[in-house]
Amino acid sequence: MAPIALADINSSPSSLNTEPQSDFQLPLGEYIFKRIESLGIKSIFGVPGDFNLQFLEHLYQTNVKWYGCCNELNASYATDGYSRTTGKLGVLVTTFGVGEMSAMNGVSGAFAESVPMLHIVGTTALTVKSSGANIHHLVPNISTGLQKSDHYAYEKMVGPISCRVESLKGLQNATDLIDGLIKTILEKKRPGYLYLPCDLVDQFVDASNLISVPGESFFVRNSTIPPTVQDNISELILQKLYNAKKPVVLADVLVDRYGLTPQLREFVKLANIPNSSTAMGKSILDESQASYIGDYIGDESAPQVAEYFRSADLVLHFGDYYNEINSGHNSLYKGINPDNLIILNPEYISIGSRVKIFYESFLDIVPQLLVSLDRSQLPDFSNHGVAPVEIKEVPSPKPISQTLLLNKLQKFLKPDDVLISDTCSIMFGTNELRLPRNVKVIGQHFYLSIGMALPCSFGVSVALREMNSKRRLILLEGDGSAQMTIQELANFNRHGLNPLIFLLNNNGYTVERVIKGPERDYNDIMPNWKWTKIFDVFGYSNAKCCKVGTPDELDQAMQKLGDSDLDVARLIEVELAPLDVPDRFHAMCNC
Amino acid sequence: MAPIALADINSSPSSLNTEPQSDFQLPLGEYIFKRIESLGIKSIFGVPGDFNLQFLEHLYQTNVKWYGCCNELNASYATDGYSRTTGKLGVLVTTFGVGEMSAMNGVSGAFAESVPMLHIVGTTALTVKSSGANIHHLVPNISTGLQKSDHYAYEKMVGPISCRVESLKGLQNATDLIDGLIKTILEKKRPGYLYLPCDLVDQFVDASNLISVPGESFFVRNSTIPPTVQDNISELILQKLYNAKKPVVLADVLVDRYGLTPQLREFVKLANIPNSSTAMGKSILDESQASYIGDYIGDESAPQVAEYFRSADLVLHFGDYYNEINSGHNSLYKGINPDNLIILNPEYISIGSRVKIFYESFLDIVPQLLVSLDRSQLPDFSNHGVAPVEIKEVPSPKPISQTLLLNKLQKFLKPDDVLISDTCSIMFGTNELRLPRNVKVIGQHFYLSIGMALPCSFGVSVALREMNSKRRLILLEGDGSAQMTIQELANFNRHGLNPLIFLLNNNGYTVERVIKGPERDYNDIMPNWKWTKIFDVFGYSNAKCCKVGTPDELDQAMQKLGDSDLDVARLIEVELAPLDVPDRFHAMCNC
Repeated sequence: MAPIALADINSSPSSLNTEPQSDFQLPLGEYIFKRIESLGIKSIFGVPGDFNLQFLEHLYQTNVKWYGCCNELNASYATDGYSRTTGKLGVLVTTFGVGEMSAMNGVSGAFAESVPMLHIVGTTALTVKSSGANIHHLVPNISTGLQKSDHYAYEKMVGPISCRVESLKGLQNATDLIDGLIKTILEKKRPGYLYLPCDLVDQFVDASNLISVPGESFFVRNSTIPPTVQDNISELILQKLYNAKKPVVLADVLVDRYGLTPQLREFVKLANIPNSSTAMGKSILDESQASYIGDYIGDESAPQVAEYFRSADLVLHFGDYYNEINSGHNSLYKGINPDNLIILNPEYISIGSRVKIFYESFLDIVPQLLVSLDRSQLPDFSNHGVAPVEIKEVPSPKPISQTLLLNKLQKFLKPDDVLISDTCSIMFGTNELRLPRNVKVIGQHFYLSIGMALPCSFGVSVALREMNSKRRLILLEGDGSAQMTIQELANFNRHGLNPLIFLLNNNGYTVERVIKGPERDYNDIMPNWKWTKIFDVFGYSNAKCCKVGTPDELDQAMQKLGDSDLDVARLIEVELAPLDVPDRFHAMCNC
Repeated sequence: MAPIALADINSSPSSLNTEPQSDFQLPLGEYIFKRIESLGIKSIFGVPGDFNLQFLEHLYQTNVKWYGCCNELNASYATDGYSRTTGKLGVLVTTFGVGEMSAMNGVSGAFAESVPMLHIVGTTALTVKSSGANIHHLVPNISTGLQKSDHYAYEKMVGPISCRVESLKGLQNATDLIDGLIKTILEKKRPGYLYLPCDLVDQFVDASNLISVPGESFFVRNSTIPPTVQDNISELILQKLYNAKKPVVLADVLVDRYGLTPQLREFVKLANIPNSSTAMGKSILDESQASYIGDYIGDESAPQVAEYFRSADLVLHFGDYYNEINSGHNSLYKGINPDNLIILNPEYISIGSRVKIFYESFLDIVPQLLVSLDRSQLPDFSNHGVAPVEIKEVPSPKPISQTLLLNKLQKFLKPDDVLISDTCSIMFGTNELRLPRNVKVIGQHFYLSIGMALPCSFGVSVALREMNSKRRLILLEGDGSAQMTIQELANFNRHGLNPLIFLLNNNGYTVERVIKGPERDYNDIMPNWKWTKIFDVFGYSNAKCCKVGTPDELDQAMQKLGDSDLDVARLIEVELAPLDVPDRFHAMCNC
């Protein structure tokens, strides 16, 4: 919505840079989209608004594609999904105030889960800002009639949820500031903000950065310490490994975020060390290998896995992200001798209880470990003796329980699937699954925002298509979660994307009912949504849906909609009992 | 979602106040709900989350009813609608991080539009806060492994969108702080935050405030200046009026927010002065009276109204809120001699160009004007000679244009209707309607957040029922707007509320298309939603829907669904052209 901005964005006083001064100049808006394109980003997300429309006009000078979402919160989740899938950078575009504020929770979640994201907010014109006028979309000063409004009010709010905020005050250094912002985002793996006044985007800037600083260079990292130091650290770690009798590798989420998954998989394979993942690290390692012993989440793990860790003489924790959920409520290192623990993080490396090196990154060490590994010094660890983790059956008053569904999923999953789970009780059960080769698991295991996964899946789908991938996208979605962000389902069809959705209908917020108020109305939602008709309403003509209440019906539906009809969107509504949850969820609540 | 909080909220160390110390003690959670109840608030809104569940348990000691919304943004809009309708206070309950951050834009909008709201955020336990642990829902420190997390990160963000933030650090003075917060919110007519640690709500506090400071007293305001000063100001204004030949009263939004509507209506009626409303002040005055000359929005008004204002010898602007939209892009006082202008605001009173009294409130002066008015000194103003404002026809390529719809609405509206418009192009056209007696208009004319009105209507409906009102609720909703927040439609049915919705289907963001990019895909939405089937999907069994493409069909639908079937939800989908907007919207864009 737009009024005054219309005048602003269409005004071009002659003193402004409205004509190129040399061959290396471009309008600022075009520079930004060309920079995004140079990074290999082909898709961006957002919602139009009058303060970003003029910026969006420059999109069409590139091949970057716009994916408009139904609202800004959904767009932020989609951007998050795109970023997690491509491993590059998600780009979100919103408008001043109403847009950016609606997206806040998605950006906050990306920060909490270490997902890089560039959030571009189109703002009021610089000329208007200095007037302090009460422009629409802006919260005024509380003494509205007596004091000017602060057009920087919103950008002062986003510090805790971003690694860097750039608010352009003019054209000087604008391209360097933008490039610097992107570098920081990629380095810190967190969201960053670009506040972009709508009167700057048509003005010309020196675009020579696009040539002198190519997109690929943004992904290149220069180590800050000498190679000899890296050698020494790596050697120290390898010596510990060579001397170990019962080592174990624990893969954690930052391995994924910092793009070290291939190296870690290779290291584990070469050394043939027993290995495991945390809750958030799920799917980093190849669980189809015999050396994978099951997920480890401290006290919330299967007993045989916890037992293995606690009797290990070396635990190599790669990419650790220590938090409440991921540490099994602070039980991750319980029973592990600190001398036997090595932690490799982007900001520090800790070797046993006596060596802690701050500001050294595992980004330097992991490749070095691979290079330096001398397999001849390693014993054969293949016989680790850990019994396979089984999905523990939890009885339910309904014919289908969540654990039955998990068992079916275990058989249903194929190599290369992408499995996305919303913040609902079954998410915690997915850590009991043994994943086929190269399955990718996505979910907000730490930030735990309900409703995140459906729009996130949209971003994931866009990314997969952009990567020419044919991987199946399987979404596990609770009914309470689905109601939060359901409109985004329409966008899959708009762009010909075909998820397979398991809609877990248990009549409300089961995840909350188990914690408190199982019968309270505050945990109810509007029941009786006709989930199997929802595709029709959202304009699909060829989607497939069914509702299942028994194991047989579930089998048939999974066979029919999972293996065929892959070119249409599919939804299986599964009837579940309100208090039925996986064993792992009970385990977590009891911790 | 909950893990660690579970342990926190269930723990009751013996050192805590878990038993009442006297007859005047209550658990803190119960105190808060009893305080809310004492204010006459019967309904509150929100979404459950593990950090507010224990607090919500205390709800059941009162008759306050919980209205769970589909997500927090929608809940914040509903709270806003409830607050605007009751004139009391909207209460919103969310959970730490994920919940409060999702609600941010609705709270920001309430701030911008001067709507009082108490936002209660259930947070991590005090004991956990001091540990700096990485608890779920919390953004960690950017140096996650090296530095503690700040559990106060979120509450540091909300300064610009709230009049006061209370973050309880213990029980001492807790009830006074809470009461003080509510007083500030009611005084400032803005949102305020209560951050409520989940380990405090079961502990007992002295509840004697509930007796010594009754709820009614929160709405009583004591003037800060002597009655003689008020008399003098009021006399100065009245003398101007007695001497005026062509005066006009301009009613603005803060009259509504500060509860002065009955007094201003009475004043206008007694004095029989020609009168008008701003865009945001729409429906404060009784437009069925002959003295109402049409809405005034500076250059964006009907010419005869602007002409009247600019030739008036006295303009009495009550409850002014000077901002871009409401001032007709800074043209509100254009052509008006500053000596002839009186502005009455909560924070200042300005009489002509020479008298400006800061920190004096119109709350003291308006009642005084009523008391002191001597009608014998007033000439007869009844023959103001302003021709009635007509809805200017704008041709459309489709059989139904927005202006045709507005003309139909003009005939359709009845006394006491509540007309809610989303932030879409027709909103601007509603200022051309001449409202029957006691119609209430609701919309975000300044903050202009798309998607606000549908959940807002839910809050309005709840408030109307609570007030035993049978007023019709009519919602004007664009298709782009509707997609933003559509899930909340389910909640009307859940609670037996029966809106009449005009769904204006123009295939995208018309409001943006007219400003920029009429053919651009960034202004497209997923088309072909089957709007008339949406009630079925959301679990309604008895709703009525139809789709109309011609004026005759529209007539029939309005007759059938508008006048009968009032006890069910109704939706009329109106086919419109993508670039068809009311004349007023064009007028605004050209300013």
